[in-house]
Amino acid sequence: MKKIRAAIIGYGNIGHYVLDALETAPDFEIAGIVRRDASNVPAELAKYPVVTSLEALKDVQVAVLCTPSRSAQEFAERALELGINTVDSFDIHTEIVATRRALDTVARKHAAVAVLSAGWDPGSDSIVRALLEVCAPKGLTYTNFGPGMSMGHTVAVKAIDGVKAALSMTIPTGTGIHRRMVYIELEEGRDFAAVAAAIKADPYFAHDETHVMQVESVDTLLDMGHGVNLTRKGVSGRTQNQRFEFNMSINNPALTAQIMVGAARASLLQKPGAYTMIEIPLIDFLYGDRETLIKQLV
Amino acid sequence: MKKIRAAIIGYGNIGHYVLDALETAPDFEIAGIVRRDASNVPAELAKYPVVTSLEALKDVQVAVLCTPSRSAQEFAERALELGINTVDSFDIHTEIVATRRALDTVARKHAAVAVLSAGWDPGSDSIVRALLEVCAPKGLTYTNFGPGMSMGHTVAVKAIDGVKAALSMTIPTGTGIHRRMVYIELEEGRDFAAVAAAIKADPYFAHDETHVMQVESVDTLLDMGHGVNLTRKGVSGRTQNQRFEFNMSINNPALTAQIMVGAARASLLQKPGAYTMIEIPLIDFLYGDRETLIKQLV
Repeated sequence: MKKIRAAIIGYGNIGHYVLDALETAPDFEIAGIVRRDASNVPAELAKYPVVTSLEALKDVQVAVLCTPSRSAQEFAERALELGINTVDSFDIHTEIVATRRALDTVARKHAAVAVLSAGWDPGSDSIVRALLEVCAPKGLTYTNFGPGMSMGHTVAVKAIDGVKAALSMTIPTGTGIHRRMVYIELEEGRDFAAVAAAIKADPYFAHDETHVMQVESVDTLLDMGHGVNLTRKGVSGRTQNQRFEFNMSINNPALTAQIMVGAARASLLQKPGAYTMIEIPLIDFLYGDRETLIKQLV
Repeated sequence: MKKIRAAIIGYGNIGHYVLDALETAPDFEIAGIVRRDASNVPAELAKYPVVTSLEALKDVQVAVLCTPSRSAQEFAERALELGINTVDSFDIHTEIVATRRALDTVARKHAAVAVLSAGWDPGSDSIVRALLEVCAPKGLTYTNFGPGMSMGHTVAVKAIDGVKAALSMTIPTGTGIHRRMVYIELEEGRDFAAVAAAIKADPYFAHDETHVMQVESVDTLLDMGHGVNLTRKGVSGRTQNQRFEFNMSINNPALTAQIMVGAARASLLQKPGAYTMIEIPLIDFLYGDRETLIKQLV
Protein backbone atom coordinates (compact mmCIF):
# COMPACT_ATOMS: atom_id res chain seq x y z
CA MET A 1 0.00 0.00 0.00
CA LYS A 2 1.27 3.44 -0.93
CA LYS A 3 1.09 5.58 2.19
CA ILE A 4 -0.11 9.17 2.36
CA ARG A 5 2.81 11.55 2.91
CA ALA A 6 1.88 14.19 5.49
CA ALA A 7 3.76 17.14 6.94
CA ILE A 8 3.10 18.64 10.35
CA ILE A 9 3.26 22.45 10.32
CA GLY A 10 3.90 23.81 13.83
CA TYR A 11 4.87 21.62 16.73
CA GLY A 12 3.08 22.92 19.80
CA ASN A 13 0.34 21.20 21.73
CA ILE A 14 -1.75 20.10 18.75
CA GLY A 15 1.34 19.22 16.71
CA HIS A 16 2.47 16.71 19.37
CA TYR A 17 -0.87 14.94 19.23
CA VAL A 18 -0.98 15.02 15.41
CA LEU A 19 2.35 13.16 15.49
CA ASP A 20 0.66 10.48 17.65
CA ALA A 21 -2.33 10.26 15.32
CA LEU A 22 -0.19 10.05 12.16
CA GLU A 23 2.15 7.46 13.68
CA THR A 24 -0.76 5.25 14.74
CA ALA A 25 -2.65 5.59 11.43
CA PRO A 26 -1.97 2.60 9.16
CA ASP A 27 -2.05 4.60 5.94
CA PHE A 28 0.18 7.62 6.67
CA GLU A 29 3.87 8.32 6.65
CA ILE A 30 5.39 11.50 8.03
CA ALA A 31 7.28 13.53 5.41
CA GLY A 32 8.58 15.87 8.10
CA ILE A 33 7.86 18.64 10.57
CA VAL A 34 8.00 22.33 9.78
CA ARG A 35 8.83 24.65 12.69
CA ARG A 36 10.28 28.10 13.22
CA ASP A 37 13.43 26.71 14.85
CA ALA A 38 14.55 23.58 12.99
CA SER A 39 17.45 23.05 15.39
CA ASN A 40 14.92 22.32 18.13
CA VAL A 41 14.47 18.55 17.63
CA PRO A 42 12.99 16.64 20.58
CA ALA A 43 13.73 12.90 20.78
CA GLU A 44 10.40 11.81 19.26
CA LEU A 45 11.20 13.77 16.08
CA ALA A 46 14.78 12.43 15.68
CA LYS A 47 13.74 10.07 12.87
CA TYR A 48 11.97 12.73 10.80
CA PRO A 49 13.20 15.71 8.78
CA VAL A 50 12.65 18.89 10.81
CA VAL A 51 12.80 21.95 8.57
CA THR A 52 11.78 25.61 8.53
CA SER A 53 9.74 25.52 5.33
CA LEU A 54 7.41 23.11 3.57
CA GLU A 55 9.41 23.41 0.34
CA ALA A 56 12.30 21.62 2.05
CA LEU A 57 10.26 18.40 2.43
CA LYS A 58 9.88 15.76 -0.30
CA ASP A 59 6.62 14.65 -1.93
CA VAL A 60 4.24 16.10 0.65
CA GLN A 61 0.60 15.34 -0.24
CA VAL A 62 -1.05 16.99 2.73
CA ALA A 63 0.03 19.54 5.34
CA VAL A 64 -1.60 19.35 8.77
CA LEU A 65 -1.60 22.90 10.13
CA CYS A 66 -0.99 23.00 13.87
CA THR A 67 -0.43 26.76 14.01
CA PRO A 68 -2.72 29.22 15.83
CA SER A 69 -6.10 29.92 14.18
CA ARG A 70 -5.11 33.50 13.36
CA SER A 71 -2.32 32.33 11.06
CA ALA A 72 -4.10 29.25 9.67
CA GLN A 73 -5.20 30.93 6.45
CA GLU A 74 -1.73 32.26 5.67
CA PHE A 75 -0.07 28.86 6.19
CA ALA A 76 -2.86 27.12 4.26
CA GLU A 77 -2.54 29.41 1.26
CA ARG A 78 1.23 28.95 1.17
CA ALA A 79 0.83 25.14 1.10
CA LEU A 80 -2.03 25.20 -1.42
CA GLU A 81 0.10 27.30 -3.76
CA LEU A 82 2.58 24.43 -3.79
CA GLY A 83 -0.27 22.12 -4.80
CA ILE A 84 -0.29 20.55 -1.33
CA ASN A 85 -3.59 19.76 0.41
CA THR A 86 -4.16 21.34 3.81
CA VAL A 87 -6.10 20.60 6.98
CA ASP A 88 -6.64 23.11 9.78
CA SER A 89 -8.77 23.37 12.90
CA PHE A 90 -9.56 27.08 12.40
CA ASP A 91 -11.99 27.85 15.22
CA ILE A 92 -13.12 31.46 14.81
CA HIS A 93 -16.73 30.58 14.01
CA THR A 94 -17.69 34.01 12.64
CA GLU A 95 -14.90 33.91 10.03
CA ILE A 96 -15.32 30.39 8.69
CA VAL A 97 -17.41 31.31 5.64
CA ALA A 98 -14.98 34.04 4.53
CA THR A 99 -11.92 31.85 5.17
CA ARG A 100 -13.48 28.98 3.24
CA ARG A 101 -14.14 31.28 0.31
CA ALA A 102 -10.56 32.57 0.27
CA LEU A 103 -9.05 29.08 0.54
CA ASP A 104 -11.45 27.75 -2.11
CA THR A 105 -10.09 30.21 -4.68
CA VAL A 106 -6.45 29.36 -3.96
CA ALA A 107 -7.12 25.62 -3.77
CA ARG A 108 -8.95 25.48 -7.10
CA LYS A 109 -6.25 27.54 -8.79
CA HIS A 110 -3.58 25.06 -7.69
CA ALA A 111 -5.64 21.86 -8.03
CA ALA A 112 -5.41 21.22 -4.29
CA VAL A 113 -7.87 20.62 -1.45
CA ALA A 114 -8.24 22.52 1.82
CA VAL A 115 -10.26 21.05 4.68
CA LEU A 116 -10.86 23.78 7.23
CA SER A 117 -12.25 23.90 10.75
CA ALA A 118 -11.69 20.15 11.14
CA GLY A 119 -11.40 19.89 14.92
CA TRP A 120 -14.21 19.13 17.35
CA ASP A 121 -15.96 22.51 17.47
CA PRO A 122 -16.03 23.49 14.71
CA GLY A 123 -15.64 19.96 13.39
CA SER A 124 -17.23 16.84 14.83
CA ASP A 125 -19.81 18.95 16.70
CA SER A 126 -20.70 20.57 13.37
CA ILE A 127 -21.44 17.11 11.96
CA VAL A 128 -23.72 16.39 14.92
CA ARG A 129 -25.48 19.76 14.55
CA ALA A 130 -26.03 19.17 10.82
CA LEU A 131 -27.26 15.63 11.42
CA LEU A 132 -29.78 16.77 14.05
CA GLU A 133 -31.02 19.44 11.64
CA VAL A 134 -31.61 16.64 9.08
CA CYS A 135 -33.51 14.67 11.75
CA ALA A 136 -35.65 17.57 12.97
CA PRO A 137 -35.51 20.64 10.70
CA LYS A 138 -37.49 22.78 13.17
CA GLY A 139 -36.28 23.23 16.73
CA LEU A 140 -33.47 24.45 18.94
CA THR A 141 -29.94 23.12 19.30
CA TYR A 142 -27.85 24.04 22.33
CA THR A 143 -24.11 23.34 22.44
CA ASN A 144 -22.84 23.28 26.01
CA PHE A 145 -19.07 23.23 26.47
CA GLY A 146 -17.03 22.04 29.38
CA PRO A 147 -16.05 21.79 32.05
CA GLY A 148 -12.76 22.52 30.34
CA MET A 149 -10.07 25.08 29.62
CA SER A 150 -10.88 27.75 27.03
CA MET A 151 -7.73 28.70 25.11
CA GLY A 152 -9.17 31.95 23.71
CA HIS A 153 -10.39 33.17 27.11
CA THR A 154 -7.15 32.16 28.80
CA VAL A 155 -5.13 34.18 26.29
CA ALA A 156 -7.45 37.16 26.87
CA VAL A 157 -6.86 37.03 30.63
CA LYS A 158 -3.09 36.75 30.19
CA ALA A 159 -3.16 39.97 28.18
CA ILE A 160 -4.63 41.93 31.11
CA ASP A 161 -2.22 44.15 33.05
CA GLY A 162 -1.14 42.65 36.36
CA VAL A 163 -1.80 39.00 35.38
CA LYS A 164 1.27 36.74 35.65
CA ALA A 165 -0.41 33.42 34.74
CA ALA A 166 -4.00 32.50 34.00
CA LEU A 167 -6.48 29.74 33.30
CA SER A 168 -10.05 30.32 32.16
CA MET A 169 -12.35 27.35 32.64
CA THR A 170 -15.65 27.09 30.76
CA ILE A 171 -18.49 25.72 32.89
CA PRO A 172 -21.78 24.86 31.18
CA THR A 173 -24.93 26.09 32.91
CA GLY A 174 -27.30 24.75 30.23
CA THR A 175 -29.06 26.07 27.06
CA GLY A 176 -25.69 27.15 25.63
CA ILE A 177 -24.96 29.54 28.52
CA HIS A 178 -21.57 29.32 30.21
CA ARG A 179 -19.93 30.43 33.42
CA ARG A 180 -16.28 31.52 33.29
CA MET A 181 -14.10 30.45 36.18
CA VAL A 182 -10.85 32.41 35.95
CA TYR A 183 -7.79 31.41 38.00
CA ILE A 184 -4.89 33.88 38.07
CA GLU A 185 -1.48 34.38 39.54
CA LEU A 186 -0.95 38.08 40.26
CA GLU A 187 2.18 40.05 39.47
CA GLU A 188 3.86 41.30 42.64
CA GLY A 189 2.35 44.36 44.26
CA ARG A 190 -0.81 44.33 42.13
CA ASP A 191 -4.27 44.83 43.55
CA PHE A 192 -6.41 41.72 43.05
CA ALA A 193 -9.75 43.58 43.11
CA ALA A 194 -8.63 45.96 40.35
CA VAL A 195 -7.29 43.14 38.15
CA ALA A 196 -10.43 41.07 38.69
CA ALA A 197 -12.58 44.05 37.71
CA ALA A 198 -10.50 44.54 34.54
CA ILE A 199 -11.02 40.87 33.59
CA LYS A 200 -14.78 41.07 34.12
CA ALA A 201 -14.93 44.23 31.97
CA ASP A 202 -13.04 42.58 29.07
CA PRO A 203 -15.29 41.89 26.01
CA TYR A 204 -14.44 38.18 26.32
CA PHE A 205 -16.10 38.10 29.76
CA ALA A 206 -18.45 41.10 29.96
CA HIS A 207 -21.50 39.09 28.84
CA ASP A 208 -20.92 35.95 30.88
CA GLU A 209 -21.13 35.17 34.57
CA THR A 210 -17.43 35.44 35.51
CA HIS A 211 -15.68 34.52 38.74
CA VAL A 212 -12.03 35.45 39.23
CA MET A 213 -9.88 33.67 41.81
CA GLN A 214 -6.29 34.24 42.85
CA VAL A 215 -4.19 31.08 43.17
CA GLU A 216 -0.61 30.26 44.11
CA SER A 217 0.03 28.17 41.00
CA VAL A 218 -2.01 28.04 37.81
CA ASP A 219 0.19 25.22 36.55
CA THR A 220 -1.16 22.74 39.11
CA LEU A 221 -4.69 23.34 37.75
CA LEU A 222 -3.95 22.61 34.09
CA ASP A 223 -5.84 19.66 32.60
CA MET A 224 -6.56 19.23 28.88
CA GLY A 225 -9.77 17.34 29.44
CA HIS A 226 -12.87 18.91 27.96
CA GLY A 227 -16.48 18.06 27.35
CA VAL A 228 -19.55 18.77 25.26
CA ASN A 229 -23.25 18.30 25.84
CA LEU A 230 -25.16 19.09 22.65
CA THR A 231 -28.95 18.87 22.65
CA ARG A 232 -31.71 19.35 20.13
CA LYS A 233 -35.45 19.23 20.67
CA GLY A 234 -37.34 19.62 17.45
CA VAL A 235 -39.96 18.63 14.91
CA SER A 236 -39.79 15.87 12.29
CA GLY A 237 -42.47 16.55 9.69
CA ARG A 238 -45.41 17.50 11.94
CA THR A 239 -44.27 15.42 14.92
CA GLN A 240 -43.14 17.49 17.91
CA ASN A 241 -40.83 16.72 20.82
CA GLN A 242 -38.15 14.72 19.02
CA ARG A 243 -35.21 14.73 21.42
CA PHE A 244 -31.51 14.24 20.72
CA GLU A 245 -28.40 14.53 22.85
CA PHE A 246 -24.67 14.15 22.17
CA ASN A 247 -22.14 14.00 25.00
CA MET A 248 -18.41 13.64 25.05
CA SER A 249 -15.64 13.71 27.62
CA ILE A 250 -12.28 13.94 25.88
CA ASN A 251 -8.65 15.04 25.84
CA ASN A 252 -9.03 18.22 23.81
CA PRO A 253 -5.83 18.35 21.66
CA ALA A 254 -5.82 14.55 21.17
CA LEU A 255 -9.32 14.64 19.67
CA THR A 256 -8.55 17.67 17.53
CA ALA A 257 -5.43 15.95 16.17
CA GLN A 258 -7.22 12.67 15.42
CA ILE A 259 -9.97 14.44 13.49
CA MET A 260 -7.39 16.46 11.53
CA VAL A 261 -5.69 13.24 10.43
CA GLY A 262 -9.06 11.88 9.24
CA ALA A 263 -9.57 15.12 7.35
CA ALA A 264 -6.09 14.79 5.80
CA ARG A 265 -7.12 11.36 4.51
CA ALA A 266 -10.44 12.73 3.21
CA SER A 267 -8.71 15.63 1.46
CA LEU A 268 -7.16 13.24 -1.05
CA LEU A 269 -10.61 12.07 -2.17
CA GLN A 270 -12.17 15.49 -2.86
CA LYS A 271 -12.15 17.60 -5.98
CA PRO A 272 -10.03 20.79 -5.77
CA GLY A 273 -11.56 23.40 -3.46
CA ALA A 274 -12.12 24.21 0.22
CA TYR A 275 -14.42 22.16 2.43
CA THR A 276 -15.79 22.14 5.95
CA MET A 277 -16.49 18.72 7.45
CA ILE A 278 -20.24 18.78 6.70
CA GLU A 279 -19.38 19.03 2.99
CA ILE A 280 -17.44 15.74 2.88
CA PRO A 281 -18.88 12.21 3.10
CA LEU A 282 -17.97 10.75 6.50
CA ILE A 283 -16.67 7.53 4.98
CA ASP A 284 -13.86 9.52 3.32
CA PHE A 285 -12.37 10.30 6.77
CA LEU A 286 -11.97 6.61 7.56
CA TYR A 287 -9.22 4.16 6.75
CA GLY A 288 -10.23 0.90 5.13
CA ASP A 289 -12.09 -0.81 2.35
CA ARG A 290 -15.37 0.95 1.55
CA GLU A 291 -17.65 -2.08 1.57
CA THR A 292 -16.09 -3.29 4.81
CA LEU A 293 -16.70 0.11 6.41
CA ILE A 294 -20.30 0.11 5.17
CA LYS A 295 -20.82 -3.37 6.54
CA GLN A 296 -19.36 -2.42 9.93
CA LEU A 297 -20.82 1.06 10.38
CA VAL A 298 -24.07 1.35 8.41
CA MET B 1 -37.78 28.17 -6.91
CA LYS B 2 -38.32 24.98 -8.85
CA LYS B 3 -39.51 22.36 -6.36
CA ILE B 4 -38.37 18.76 -6.25
CA ARG B 5 -41.12 16.42 -7.48
CA ALA B 6 -41.36 13.39 -5.21
CA ALA B 7 -43.57 10.32 -5.28
CA ILE B 8 -44.51 8.29 -2.24
CA ILE B 9 -44.47 4.56 -2.94
CA GLY B 10 -46.59 2.72 -0.39
CA TYR B 11 -48.89 4.46 2.02
CA GLY B 12 -48.64 2.64 5.32
CA ASN B 13 -47.15 3.94 8.52
CA ILE B 14 -43.98 5.44 7.04
CA GLY B 15 -45.86 6.71 3.99
CA HIS B 16 -48.16 8.82 6.19
CA TYR B 17 -45.21 10.47 7.90
CA VAL B 18 -43.35 10.97 4.61
CA LEU B 19 -46.43 12.89 3.46
CA ASP B 20 -46.03 15.14 6.55
CA ALA B 21 -42.31 15.62 5.93
CA LEU B 22 -42.76 16.39 2.22
CA GLU B 23 -45.65 18.79 2.88
CA THR B 24 -43.65 20.69 5.49
CA ALA B 25 -40.43 20.81 3.42
CA PRO B 26 -40.10 24.13 1.61
CA ASP B 27 -38.48 22.64 -1.48
CA PHE B 28 -40.66 19.64 -2.35
CA GLU B 29 -43.90 19.06 -4.19
CA ILE B 30 -45.76 15.78 -4.18
CA ALA B 31 -46.13 14.23 -7.64
CA GLY B 32 -48.43 11.55 -6.27
CA ILE B 33 -48.82 8.43 -4.23
CA VAL B 34 -48.44 4.91 -5.57
CA ARG B 35 -50.40 2.23 -3.76
CA ARG B 36 -51.78 -1.19 -4.53
CA ASP B 37 -55.38 0.02 -4.35
CA ALA B 38 -55.66 3.44 -5.99
CA SER B 39 -59.34 3.68 -5.14
CA ASN B 40 -58.39 3.89 -1.46
CA VAL B 41 -57.94 7.66 -1.10
CA PRO B 42 -58.05 9.02 2.44
CA ALA B 43 -58.96 12.70 2.91
CA GLU B 44 -55.36 13.91 3.24
CA LEU B 45 -54.53 12.49 -0.20
CA ALA B 46 -57.54 14.00 -1.97
CA LYS B 47 -55.46 16.73 -3.57
CA TYR B 48 -52.81 14.36 -4.98
CA PRO B 49 -52.85 11.79 -7.78
CA VAL B 50 -53.16 8.32 -6.26
CA VAL B 51 -52.15 5.65 -8.76
CA THR B 52 -51.09 2.02 -8.91
CA SER B 53 -47.81 2.51 -10.76
CA LEU B 54 -45.05 5.08 -10.82
CA GLU B 55 -45.32 5.36 -14.62
CA ALA B 56 -48.74 6.97 -14.18
CA LEU B 57 -47.23 10.01 -12.39
CA LYS B 58 -45.75 13.02 -14.18
CA ASP B 59 -42.15 14.25 -13.93
CA VAL B 60 -41.16 12.34 -10.83
CA GLN B 61 -37.55 13.10 -9.81
CA VAL B 62 -37.37 10.95 -6.72
CA ALA B 63 -39.43 8.07 -5.34
CA VAL B 64 -39.58 7.68 -1.56
CA LEU B 65 -40.06 3.97 -0.95
CA CYS B 66 -42.33 3.32 2.01
CA THR B 67 -42.71 -0.35 1.28
CA PRO B 68 -41.42 -3.13 3.55
CA SER B 69 -37.64 -3.69 3.53
CA ARG B 70 -38.05 -7.07 1.88
CA SER B 71 -39.47 -5.48 -1.26
CA ALA B 72 -37.39 -2.30 -1.19
CA GLN B 73 -34.87 -3.52 -3.76
CA GLU B 74 -37.54 -4.59 -6.23
CA PHE B 75 -39.38 -1.25 -6.02
CA ALA B 76 -36.10 0.65 -6.15
CA GLU B 77 -34.92 -1.15 -9.28
CA ARG B 78 -38.23 -0.53 -11.00
CA ALA B 79 -38.00 3.22 -10.29
CA LEU B 80 -34.31 3.45 -11.18
CA GLU B 81 -35.03 1.79 -14.53
CA LEU B 82 -37.34 4.74 -15.24
CA GLY B 83 -34.42 7.07 -14.46
CA ILE B 84 -36.06 8.10 -11.18
CA ASN B 85 -33.96 8.49 -8.03
CA THR B 86 -34.96 6.38 -5.04
CA VAL B 87 -34.72 6.56 -1.28
CA ASP B 88 -35.42 3.64 1.02
CA SER B 89 -34.95 2.83 4.68
CA PHE B 90 -33.88 -0.76 4.02
CA ASP B 91 -32.98 -2.05 7.46
CA ILE B 92 -31.64 -5.59 7.05
CA HIS B 93 -28.10 -4.74 8.12
CA THR B 94 -26.50 -7.93 6.84
CA GLU B 95 -27.80 -7.35 3.32
CA ILE B 96 -26.95 -3.68 2.88
CA VAL B 97 -23.65 -4.21 1.04
CA ALA B 98 -25.19 -6.65 -1.45
CA THR B 99 -28.28 -4.49 -1.94
CA ARG B 100 -26.13 -1.40 -2.48
CA ARG B 101 -24.11 -3.25 -5.11
CA ALA B 102 -27.22 -4.39 -6.95
CA LEU B 103 -28.82 -0.94 -6.86
CA ASP B 104 -25.54 0.68 -7.88
CA THR B 105 -25.47 -1.28 -11.12
CA VAL B 106 -29.04 -0.42 -12.03
CA ALA B 107 -28.68 3.21 -10.96
CA ARG B 108 -25.55 3.79 -13.03
CA LYS B 109 -27.09 2.12 -16.05
CA HIS B 110 -30.06 4.48 -15.94
CA ALA B 111 -28.20 7.62 -14.79
CA ALA B 112 -30.14 7.69 -11.52
CA VAL B 113 -29.27 7.77 -7.82
CA ALA B 114 -30.38 5.37 -5.09
CA VAL B 115 -29.96 6.31 -1.44
CA LEU B 116 -30.48 3.21 0.61
CA SER B 117 -30.86 2.51 4.30
CA ALA B 118 -31.68 6.17 4.98
CA GLY B 119 -33.69 5.87 8.17
CA TRP B 120 -32.33 6.18 11.69
CA ASP B 121 -30.72 2.76 12.04
CA PRO B 122 -29.35 2.20 9.54
CA GLY B 123 -29.19 5.91 8.78
CA SER B 124 -28.58 8.69 11.28
CA ASP B 125 -27.09 6.20 13.76
CA SER B 126 -24.70 5.09 10.99
CA ILE B 127 -23.53 8.70 10.69
CA VAL B 128 -22.90 8.84 14.44
CA ARG B 129 -21.04 5.51 14.37
CA ALA B 130 -18.84 6.67 11.48
CA LEU B 131 -18.18 10.02 13.17
CA LEU B 132 -17.12 8.37 16.42
CA GLU B 133 -14.81 6.07 14.45
CA VAL B 134 -13.21 9.21 12.98
CA CYS B 135 -12.84 10.66 16.50
CA ALA B 136 -11.38 7.52 18.06
CA PRO B 137 -10.34 4.86 15.50
CA LYS B 138 -9.63 2.26 18.20
CA GLY B 139 -12.34 1.28 20.65
CA LEU B 140 -15.81 -0.17 21.03
CA THR B 141 -19.15 1.23 19.95
CA TYR B 142 -22.38 -0.10 21.41
CA THR B 143 -25.75 0.77 19.89
CA ASN B 144 -28.57 0.20 22.37
CA PHE B 145 -32.11 0.43 21.01
CA GLY B 146 -35.35 1.09 22.77
CA PRO B 147 -37.47 0.53 24.63
CA GLY B 148 -39.59 0.86 21.57
CA MET B 149 -41.47 -0.82 18.78
CA SER B 150 -39.28 -2.12 15.98
CA MET B 151 -41.10 -1.56 12.73
CA GLY B 152 -38.89 -3.92 10.76
CA HIS B 153 -39.29 -6.67 13.33
CA THR B 154 -43.03 -6.08 13.61
CA VAL B 155 -43.44 -6.33 9.84
CA ALA B 156 -41.38 -9.52 9.90
CA VAL B 157 -43.67 -11.04 12.53
CA LYS B 158 -46.81 -10.02 10.63
CA ALA B 159 -45.45 -11.84 7.57
CA ILE B 160 -45.35 -15.11 9.47
CA ASP B 161 -48.14 -17.54 8.74
CA GLY B 162 -50.81 -17.61 11.43
CA VAL B 163 -50.15 -14.11 12.81
CA LYS B 164 -53.17 -11.82 12.72
CA ALA B 165 -51.61 -8.78 14.43
CA ALA B 166 -48.20 -8.20 15.96
CA LEU B 167 -45.96 -5.86 17.89
CA SER B 168 -42.24 -6.43 18.42
CA MET B 169 -40.73 -4.35 21.22
CA THR B 170 -36.96 -3.89 21.47
CA ILE B 171 -35.63 -3.75 25.02
CA PRO B 172 -31.99 -2.69 25.55
CA THR B 173 -30.05 -4.79 28.03
CA GLY B 174 -26.76 -2.87 27.55
CA THR B 175 -23.56 -3.26 25.45
CA GLY B 176 -25.66 -3.58 22.31
CA ILE B 177 -27.57 -6.64 23.50
CA HIS B 178 -31.35 -6.65 23.13
CA ARG B 179 -34.34 -8.60 24.19
CA ARG B 180 -37.26 -8.90 21.75
CA MET B 181 -40.69 -8.86 23.33
CA VAL B 182 -43.17 -10.01 20.68
CA TYR B 183 -46.91 -9.59 21.24
CA ILE B 184 -49.21 -11.34 18.77
CA GLU B 185 -52.84 -11.97 18.01
CA LEU B 186 -53.25 -15.41 16.47
CA GLU B 187 -55.42 -16.27 13.48
CA GLU B 188 -58.25 -18.55 14.46
CA GLY B 189 -57.40 -22.19 14.83
CA ARG B 190 -53.63 -21.64 14.69
CA ASP B 191 -51.20 -23.28 17.07
CA PHE B 192 -49.42 -20.70 19.22
CA ALA B 193 -46.33 -22.84 19.84
CA ALA B 194 -45.76 -23.41 16.13
CA VAL B 195 -46.17 -19.73 15.29
CA ALA B 196 -43.89 -18.70 18.17
CA ALA B 197 -41.23 -21.14 16.94
CA ALA B 198 -41.50 -19.73 13.43
CA ILE B 199 -40.99 -16.22 14.78
CA LYS B 200 -37.96 -17.24 16.81
CA ALA B 201 -36.46 -18.94 13.74
CA ASP B 202 -36.87 -15.85 11.54
CA PRO B 203 -33.53 -14.14 10.70
CA TYR B 204 -34.84 -10.99 12.39
CA PHE B 205 -35.04 -12.84 15.72
CA ALA B 206 -32.78 -15.86 15.51
CA HIS B 207 -29.83 -14.19 17.24
CA ASP B 208 -31.65 -12.36 20.06
CA GLU B 209 -33.37 -13.38 23.26
CA THR B 210 -36.96 -13.47 22.03
CA HIS B 211 -40.15 -13.85 24.02
CA VAL B 212 -43.43 -14.34 22.18
CA MET B 213 -46.70 -13.59 23.93
CA GLN B 214 -50.25 -14.03 22.78
CA VAL B 215 -52.53 -11.07 23.57
CA GLU B 216 -56.19 -10.19 23.05
CA SER B 217 -55.45 -6.87 21.36
CA VAL B 218 -52.16 -5.68 19.92
CA ASP B 219 -53.74 -2.33 19.16
CA THR B 220 -53.96 -1.26 22.80
CA LEU B 221 -50.16 -1.76 23.12
CA LEU B 222 -49.12 0.36 20.15
CA ASP B 223 -46.84 3.35 20.79
CA MET B 224 -44.46 4.56 18.12
CA GLY B 225 -41.97 6.13 20.51
CA HIS B 226 -38.46 4.73 20.35
CA GLY B 227 -35.00 5.46 21.65
CA VAL B 228 -31.29 4.97 21.12
CA ASN B 229 -28.30 5.10 23.42
CA LEU B 230 -25.10 4.82 21.38
CA THR B 231 -21.75 4.87 23.16
CA ARG B 232 -18.11 4.72 22.16
CA LYS B 233 -15.07 4.58 24.38
CA GLY B 234 -11.87 4.67 22.40
CA VAL B 235 -8.43 5.96 21.58
CA SER B 236 -7.48 9.13 19.66
CA GLY B 237 -3.86 8.76 18.53
CA ARG B 238 -2.28 7.33 21.70
CA THR B 239 -4.75 8.97 24.10
CA GLN B 240 -7.05 6.46 25.82
CA ASN B 241 -10.48 6.79 27.40
CA GLN B 242 -12.10 9.22 24.97
CA ARG B 243 -15.82 8.90 25.68
CA PHE B 244 -18.78 9.66 23.44
CA GLU B 245 -22.50 9.13 23.81
CA PHE B 246 -25.51 9.79 21.58
CA ASN B 247 -29.07 9.55 22.89
CA MET B 248 -32.41 10.08 21.31
CA SER B 249 -36.05 9.69 22.23
CA ILE B 250 -38.22 9.96 19.15
CA ASN B 251 -41.36 9.07 17.24
CA ASN B 252 -39.94 6.30 15.09
CA PRO B 253 -41.76 6.61 11.73
CA ALA B 254 -41.71 10.41 11.93
CA LEU B 255 -37.92 10.42 12.22
CA THR B 256 -37.49 7.79 9.50
CA ALA B 257 -39.71 9.79 7.17
CA GLN B 258 -37.91 13.07 7.86
CA ILE B 259 -34.51 11.52 7.16
CA MET B 260 -35.81 9.91 3.95
CA VAL B 261 -36.95 13.32 2.73
CA GLY B 262 -33.47 14.71 3.46
CA ALA B 263 -32.02 11.79 1.52
CA ALA B 264 -34.40 12.48 -1.38
CA ARG B 265 -33.03 16.03 -1.49
CA ALA B 266 -29.45 14.75 -1.32
CA SER B 267 -30.06 12.21 -4.09
CA LEU B 268 -30.37 15.02 -6.61
CA LEU B 269 -26.83 16.21 -5.85
CA GLN B 270 -25.02 12.89 -6.27
CA LYS B 271 -23.52 11.28 -9.35
CA PRO B 272 -25.38 8.17 -10.64
CA GLY B 273 -24.98 5.21 -8.31
CA ALA B 274 -26.13 3.82 -4.98
CA TYR B 275 -25.18 5.41 -1.65
CA THR B 276 -25.59 4.84 2.03
CA MET B 277 -25.79 7.97 4.21
CA ILE B 278 -22.13 7.88 5.27
CA GLU B 279 -21.17 8.22 1.60
CA ILE B 280 -22.98 11.56 1.15
CA PRO B 281 -21.94 14.96 2.57
CA LEU B 282 -24.37 15.90 5.37
CA ILE B 283 -24.94 19.36 3.95
CA ASP B 284 -26.59 17.78 0.89
CA PHE B 285 -29.46 16.53 3.09
CA LEU B 286 -30.33 20.06 4.20
CA TYR B 287 -32.51 22.71 2.62
CA GLY B 288 -31.01 26.14 2.21
CA ASP B 289 -28.12 28.20 0.93
CA ARG B 290 -24.77 26.46 1.46
CA GLU B 291 -22.90 29.35 3.01
CA THR B 292 -25.82 30.12 5.31
CA LEU B 293 -25.88 26.49 6.45
CA ILE B 294 -22.12 26.53 7.03
CA LYS B 295 -22.44 29.75 9.03
CA GLN B 296 -25.25 28.33 11.16
CA LEU B 297 -24.03 24.79 11.68
CA VAL B 298 -20.23 24.70 11.41
